[in-house]
Amino acid sequence: MTWHVVTGGAGFIGANLARALSQAGDQVVVVDDLRLGRREYLAGLANIQLRKVDAADIAALTAALRDVPDVSVEVWHLCANSDIRKGATDPSVDLHATFLTTFAVLEVMRARGWGVLHFASTSAVYGDHGMAAVDEAANTRPVSNYGAMKLASEAIIRAACETFLTHARLLRFPNVVGVPATHGAVLDFTRRLMADPLRLTVLGNGRQQKVYLHVAELIEAMLFVRAQALGTCEVYNLGPSDAGICVADIAQIVRDRVAPSATISCANEARGWVGDVPRFRYDVSRLAALGWTPKLTSAAAVARAVEEIAQQERAPYLATLNA
Amino acid sequence: MTWHVVTGGAGFIGANLARALSQAGDQVVVVDDLRLGRREYLAGLANIQLRKVDAADIAALTAALRDVPDVSVEVWHLCANSDIRKGATDPSVDLHATFLTTFAVLEVMRARGWGVLHFASTSAVYGDHGMAAVDEAANTRPVSNYGAMKLASEAIIRAACETFLTHARLLRFPNVVGVPATHGAVLDFTRRLMADPLRLTVLGNGRQQKVYLHVAELIEAMLFVRAQALGTCEVYNLGPSDAGICVADIAQIVRDRVAPSATISCANEARGWVGDVPRFRYDVSRLAALGWTPKLTSAAAVARAVEEIAQQERAPYLATLNA
Repeated sequence: MTWHVVTGGAGFIGANLARALSQAGDQVVVVDDLRLGRREYLAGLANIQLRKVDAADIAALTAALRDVPDVSVEVWHLCANSDIRKGATDPSVDLHATFLTTFAVLEVMRARGWGVLHFASTSAVYGDHGMAAVDEAANTRPVSNYGAMKLASEAIIRAACETFLTHARLLRFPNVVGVPATHGAVLDFTRRLMADPLRLTVLGNGRQQKVYLHVAELIEAMLFVRAQALGTCEVYNLGPSDAGICVADIAQIVRDRVAPSATISCANEARGWVGDVPRFRYDVSRLAALGWTPKLTSAAAVARAVEEIAQQERAPYLATLNA
Repeated sequence: MTWHVVTGGAGFIGANLARALSQAGDQVVVVDDLRLGRREYLAGLANIQLRKVDAADIAALTAALRDVPDVSVEVWHLCANSDIRKGATDPSVDLHATFLTTFAVLEVMRARGWGVLHFASTSAVYGDHGMAAVDEAANTRPVSNYGAMKLASEAIIRAACETFLTHARLLRFPNVVGVPATHGAVLDFTRRLMADPLRLTVLGNGRQQKVYLHVAELIEAMLFVRAQALGTCEVYNLGPSDAGICVADIAQIVRDRVAPSATISCANEARGWVGDVPRFRYDVSRLAALGWTPKLTSAAAVARAVEEIAQQERAPYLATLNA
């Protein structure tokens, strides 16, 4: 049986991944500090153990994973700071949660002789390339500390491939939407409209245009890459090839679903916050050549998530899951 | 008067830079932990103050720089682990000395409102591109922890350009040679041949081919870039455009100068050590377009350094300087 160690496995993406791995019959050990992640996101799943630990603490992480076998282990490193804005004012957040967790995960893997790592990277490693479709070989010039610490993580993973890693998959995620939502624009708009159904103010000018992938398709893509026979270190853009959906359009979809009479107002800044990338478009032909592309466009992924998140916020999460 | 803060300023490159800045009449504050750097490398220079401090310690660095003015300050961040091999077995060395020093330097600059940073980056950020001439937009895929932590440093500097840095210069150095030599192949070969004038064993197969720049030309290039009117964040390859010189040829030049009767033996491995890049070639047209190219080829730079290092190892360093 394969054992999967999933850092951040009680969070939004991690809980979806842990569920998929559990349902495939494998053993899953979730590592999570439970700041954003929640124990109940994993409730009712078989073969899952949750270890509450700060994954940047090498000694604590080592202890938490002591009973995991030495062989047939794969590590999925997903935990990170998910508040990109916060990293602009306090870089120590991304240093600790996004980079030093990667450093610690690698140190534990080296010590245990675990060679297989799937890493949740991000389109933020590229920085601002305008509307050029960015492939995996594009210049990486991050404009946020989040993107910088993810690129830093990729860099030390690449170096580890020269010493002890046998398979590293650097998966560059776009914006990911779905439930259980713990952060992000759709959740933010939904909560603010539920609190004040008459108005919604959007950061920036609303024209920031991003690529979105639904979490169900993201998990499918991650498992697809896992199933391929590939080289030691591989990097893939995961996402749709469309030009994305702009923030003002997301706000309207949420408004139409949650509070149809609300007025939406925008500011004048081209960027929503410092470190925000106002436009981004993926070239995903590398993964498409292997045989995987998402079925949902960015707009369709968001529309599906808006419905799911509206239900999540009106009902307890578990009720949503069991519906 | 401009104040220059030079981290690693008592080391090989740093001491050469500090001397040039001092001789230009500016004020220089050197930050160095004096592990490889030496106080005497700065002896006799005017307007230089040395602060012995671990630059990764934010509080200690803040205290050490408290009396530097708030304005007209430029920071030259050169300190790093210079033992690339060591980083393969103990990544904490590069984490601390190469990356967390950059993080701390940025935190101090943010707190003090200093906006000008010159950063000693490296060709190691590129990884192995074979004999393709690598320009600044090439894919960065480091194969050593040293290269990874330098790329990580570049990444957080780029992010800092979005918040408080006004001018960042990411200068990607090749192998740099000259005196005062503290590490590197020429010094290593020289010392080993002085200890045993009959034989010299070279790591790898001797065919690893690297680009070399003499430190005198490197300092010239750094000051040249400083004098240009450029954008907020600029990256430059610094070095010659030739295909470099191979390790076996360097060994022969040192042998001919230091111990002419020694026999040189090589191993069979294509790489000298894990994380070594066996071949590397720069595209330096970006800096050439601004008007600077080195006068010395890689081979000429090495030949000059072999002579200087032979003198350094036979005579006290200061005597060499004053000759």
